Amino acid sequence: MIRLNCDYLEGCHPAVLRALCDTNLEQNPGYGLDPHCENAARLIRETFACPDAAVHFLVGGTQANTTIISAALRPWEGVLCAETGHINVHETGAIEASGHKVLALPGREGKITAEQVAEAVRLQGDDEHVVRPGMVYVSMSTEVGTLYSLRELGALHDTCRELGLLLFVDGARLGYALAAPGCDMTPAQLAEHCDVFTVGGTKVGALFGEAVVIRCPALATRFRYAIKQRGGMLAKGRLLGIQFEALMENGLYFDIAGRAVRQALRIRDAFIDQGIPFTCPSPTNQQFPILTDAQAEALGRDFVLERQGRVDAGHVAMRVCTSWATTDEMVERFIGAVRAL
Amino acid sequence: MIRLNCDYLEGCHPAVLRALCDTNLEQNPGYGLDPHCENAARLIRETFACPDAAVHFLVGGTQANTTIISAALRPWEGVLCAETGHINVHETGAIEASGHKVLALPGREGKITAEQVAEAVRLQGDDEHVVRPGMVYVSMSTEVGTLYSLRELGALHDTCRELGLLLFVDGARLGYALAAPGCDMTPAQLAEHCDVFTVGGTKVGALFGEAVVIRCPALATRFRYAIKQRGGMLAKGRLLGIQFEALMENGLYFDIAGRAVRQALRIRDAFIDQGIPFTCPSPTNQQFPILTDAQAEALGRDFVLERQGRVDAGHVAMRVCTSWATTDEMVERFIGAVRAL
Amino acid sequence: MIRLNCDYLEGCHPAVLRALCDTNLEQNPGYGLDPHCENAARLIRETFACPDAAVHFLVGGTQANTTIISAALRPWEGVLCAETGHINVHETGAIEASGHKVLALPGREGKITAEQVAEAVRLQGDDEHVVRPGMVYVSMSTEVGTLYSLRELGALHDTCRELGLLLFVDGARLGYALAAPGCDMTPAQLAEHCDVFTVGGTKVGALFGEAVVIRCPALATRFRYAIKQRGGMLAKGRLLGIQFEALMENGLYFDIAGRAVRQALRIRDAFIDQGIPFTCPSPTNQQFPILTDAQAEALGRDFVLERQGRVDAGHVAMRVCTSWATTDEMVERFIGAVRAL
Amino acid sequence: MIRLNCDYLEGCHPAVLRALCDTNLEQNPGYGLDPHCENAARLIRETFACPDAAVHFLVGGTQANTTIISAALRPWEGVLCAETGHINVHETGAIEASGHKVLALPGREGKITAEQVAEAVRLQGDDEHVVRPGMVYVSMSTEVGTLYSLRELGALHDTCRELGLLLFVDGARLGYALAAPGCDMTPAQLAEHCDVFTVGGTKVGALFGEAVVIRCPALATRFRYAIKQRGGMLAKGRLLGIQFEALMENGLYFDIAGRAVRQALRIRDAFIDQGIPFTCPSPTNQQFPILTDAQAEALGRDFVLERQGRVDAGHVAMRVCTSWATTDEMVERFIGAVRAL
Repeated sequence: MIRLNCDYLEGCHPAVLRALCDTNLEQNPGYGLDPHCENAARLIRETFACPDAAVHFLVGGTQANTTIISAALRPWEGVLCAETGHINVHETGAIEASGHKVLALPGREGKITAEQVAEAVRLQGDDEHVVRPGMVYVSMSTEVGTLYSLRELGALHDTCRELGLLLFVDGARLGYALAAPGCDMTPAQLAEHCDVFTVGGTKVGALFGEAVVIRCPALATRFRYAIKQRGGMLAKGRLLGIQFEALMENGLYFDIAGRAVRQALRIRDAFIDQGIPFTCPSPTNQQFPILTDAQAEALGRDFVLERQGRVDAGHVAMRVCTSWATTDEMVERFIGAVRAL
Repeated sequence: MIRLNCDYLEGCHPAVLRALCDTNLEQNPGYGLDPHCENAARLIRETFACPDAAVHFLVGGTQANTTIISAALRPWEGVLCAETGHINVHETGAIEASGHKVLALPGREGKITAEQVAEAVRLQGDDEHVVRPGMVYVSMSTEVGTLYSLRELGALHDTCRELGLLLFVDGARLGYALAAPGCDMTPAQLAEHCDVFTVGGTKVGALFGEAVVIRCPALATRFRYAIKQRGGMLAKGRLLGIQFEALMENGLYFDIAGRAVRQALRIRDAFIDQGIPFTCPSPTNQQFPILTDAQAEALGRDFVLERQGRVDAGHVAMRVCTSWATTDEMVERFIGAVRAL
Repeated sequence: MIRLNCDYLEGCHPAVLRALCDTNLEQNPGYGLDPHCENAARLIRETFACPDAAVHFLVGGTQANTTIISAALRPWEGVLCAETGHINVHETGAIEASGHKVLALPGREGKITAEQVAEAVRLQGDDEHVVRPGMVYVSMSTEVGTLYSLRELGALHDTCRELGLLLFVDGARLGYALAAPGCDMTPAQLAEHCDVFTVGGTKVGALFGEAVVIRCPALATRFRYAIKQRGGMLAKGRLLGIQFEALMENGLYFDIAGRAVRQALRIRDAFIDQGIPFTCPSPTNQQFPILTDAQAEALGRDFVLERQGRVDAGHVAMRVCTSWATTDEMVERFIGAVRAL
Repeated sequence: MIRLNCDYLEGCHPAVLRALCDTNLEQNPGYGLDPHCENAARLIRETFACPDAAVHFLVGGTQANTTIISAALRPWEGVLCAETGHINVHETGAIEASGHKVLALPGREGKITAEQVAEAVRLQGDDEHVVRPGMVYVSMSTEVGTLYSLRELGALHDTCRELGLLLFVDGARLGYALAAPGCDMTPAQLAEHCDVFTVGGTKVGALFGEAVVIRCPALATRFRYAIKQRGGMLAKGRLLGIQFEALMENGLYFDIAGRAVRQALRIRDAFIDQGIPFTCPSPTNQQFPILTDAQAEALGRDFVLERQGRVDAGHVAMRVCTSWATTDEMVERFIGAVRAL
């Protein structure tokens, strides 16, 4: 069986593993105060052209999201996001457990607009009986594989600034977004058009790890307290620094992401050739074809895909994912199977 | 100006005020451990025919809702309710501040169904990445003035029992619901078909106060700790006991509610006579006519109503409320104004 | 039996009751936005000579404390207080339930010093593994009946300002403190030497109610959201305004408190005459004599006192309280009983 | 400079690193549902002779502590522990951020007794104004290096069972405790005398990771929800399984811990030979000598130790730690330096 169901099936990219092995016996201070974290933070600031940003390294995405959002909001504030947003549906209410309401807006292809944000703020009307929007959360790429354009993100950022909200970009799959041929923004432009974002390592070559990049000085203040309190301060913080050093050095992060996206687009084209539709068009490493039950069964003989849910009596939506670890051989065998449907 | 915008405009029913005056110099133990609270609890158990229920008295509705829900749920559980549910829209995220997600379902006329609850549980699928529904919250009467029928409430209760959820009926306006001519259930039947409910005093003749009636023994255990921790334990708890004694003695609670509903239905009929539509049909003390801007302006000259929101370019939805304190003269003057539209 | 065990045994002062009766049928907007609350706030600003302070009215003390503290602190900050502080021992962990650690310091006669605060901050050392002190909580009068002097409070305030902490004075018994013959500060001086304080009504003549006076502009921002979210926004907020109007008009608040303190000091002197010691010297309305078991039993025949705890094999500490409702006759009968020991 | 300041200075034991490298390209399901986690759980159940226990793997200690404690307690319950307990002093109020008070008891050499627990419960007296103790937290070895004896732990467990509390053993350094020559209990006996414990990997040979072993069925129910909500569910959960497999296979965990303890005791003896006292006697891998300022400065030339705090004007307490990574050469050079003092 070949697994193509998600992008965290294997360990880490060989270059990351090598770096971990090479440094294993080094003695380093704990809690992210080591030279590797310092160097990785420098590389991230350079890559995203934000020399004044604070950079912290956390282990996982839910942890990063909860830490950022609960540190940013006043007790009565909530976070606006698309109904499909990861924080709204797949984090077991972690944001609410930190005391804040997730204010879900109907999305289009996993995205929300500046107009929706402005309307939500207008409707709340500074009425103290209603949760006040304090932050906007978007994912890049989104949970359904789509991308914000530079214009869309810029409009969101302008609106947020105008209305006094912070804009947070969840970059669990940021590499796959920025390396996608269809993406129209650079890393620097992404960073410029939000207040805080994450650079996901777990799904893009690392064993684990999300870098948190904070451009808003007020949010950066005493953020290490927030990390520690939320259980996100890794004793051997070096492990995060070492991995992000390896990924950011010479653009490895975007190289491996770009390769995975190209593989995913080959798979997409094979589905298209078969006349198979998608839940929505995705230009990134996640593809969501709508299969007949017979097609799903046929592919399921040799491949593990992720079931998204039933579409109608005879059809089911599936997820196919590529990653740094997907080999060309896997892709070719899968495409062969698609063609045989 | 005559205010008809809500049902908590005046102090309390004269009989309640008299009881407070008569007992003012009595010495009583604090924190609800006095004979008045004991007697009021007995009267409520009798009225609702639930001799084994635990009865507690809290000051306000948001407080009661948060205390009940946070005492009932495990940390990863959420509460299902209609999108229009008070806990979802008008409590500044109090439930989320206690750590729990409000799982909003699209309502019909402010109500949700047993089928929707069953479907929500099925969709969650005991997947630990998704908040688990642990309780169902309904309001009686609802936030838009409607009523659950005995069959609807019974179906919700059966489904909840089957799926291991608790059913909570927010009775902030329970009097107006049970005393409405259109209501098909008795107080005893209401109590029988849920696990916990409140009997609202604030809007039905008291200065303040909500009685919490708990039929589920597990939820009743150490509930006084929950009240104290959430700031709901009134030092002079006697004030709650004295008020509910006055209201429950000889059915005063339902008498004054019934009278207010009859007044509201007269107002409703006046609107109907003018061909004025409603956001939804309400058989209780709150009426929600859809007025033209000109009509709203005309009525606004002598009466304060509550604006609910714009319906379209030329129309606005308003709330008209009656209460124990609404006089027949007010009603007649208002009906006169409606007829003059 | 005559109860002298606490200062919330009766309803409210006759003047307060009269005001409630007189205004009962008035129609007023809800949630504290009525003219009575506005007027009461004005009277409090005048009484405490703080024209720019924000004044809000909440129902109870635990509610007020939790709302203030959780609105003031960042998530990783805690509140310093004496080990005997009400928030540390008698609020069922309400502060912790809002997410914040109570940082208890050993008190002397229920009080903490500026030096202790400075030392606590020094020891924390801005180490992100340790809760950061963000606020200091003191009670006036304290839980054991003692008073801060103007010099002590001023030193605390100076130290707080220097170190970036807020100073919060819990005034659940503020009347009894400021009206005590032994108090060396005026209401204006109290207000001047802290950032936020409460004026307790529950124990000083009201049915219920605590006024929150906020001098720190950052804490005042959107405080009504905090009140609503924590369940402290009374629908008929007028009830709080009306009561505080009655208490603040013509200094009634301090008159009734002063009278109660004088009664308590007569009781104190009776104990002293009998050679009975106290847990600590109290110049206010609460007295804490240490009785032999035989003495406690003798007094217990006609009077209810509050047992504080066993001191040694043969002695027990008790609390005797006076209030606005304590009559001279009660005091004389009690003194008679003490003399008969 | 040789670092001896803590036990998480290096990466991981070579056997652990080898296992990670060997399995790197395996495809595994995420979130701890892989065969490695299953096998590691089996090995832990065998090692601790608790065949019915639930075993989960989390990344870090603060995360594990918060997840366990907040899943175990009702909202109004707190956790008893020694004043020096990690949860009380070094986790930035993480337990309080989850809503629960840490009820600190004065410890003796970092330990609390069954008698103290019983007395705390007696004092609380099921009074709903006071936080109810719901769990006891002890560390093994403690934060100051000491050990509970089998009799002490058994007495705590008996008392907890009798009073309805859960007993939680924080085993961040469990290896060093159980492998210490002075320890009088087996792994099976440790497991038998508590309701839940952790097996620390971070400080005993792993890159990171704490195994949570739950013997109490009620606490085990839906514990994976708690892990996910608190941000502790590692996407590539396999990494935890693989590491604990390597550590538990053939007793490696206890071998490397035992060796480190023997090294620490050699260092202890060198201090004793110099007449240098300790803050308390430690039979494990952490030693806490009290040095003169001159001694601290002399050792500080070649070695990094951890400063614990000033003891008096001329003395300072320091921590010296060994771990799986401490070489005999480091120990000999350090002993040489101690002898030269």
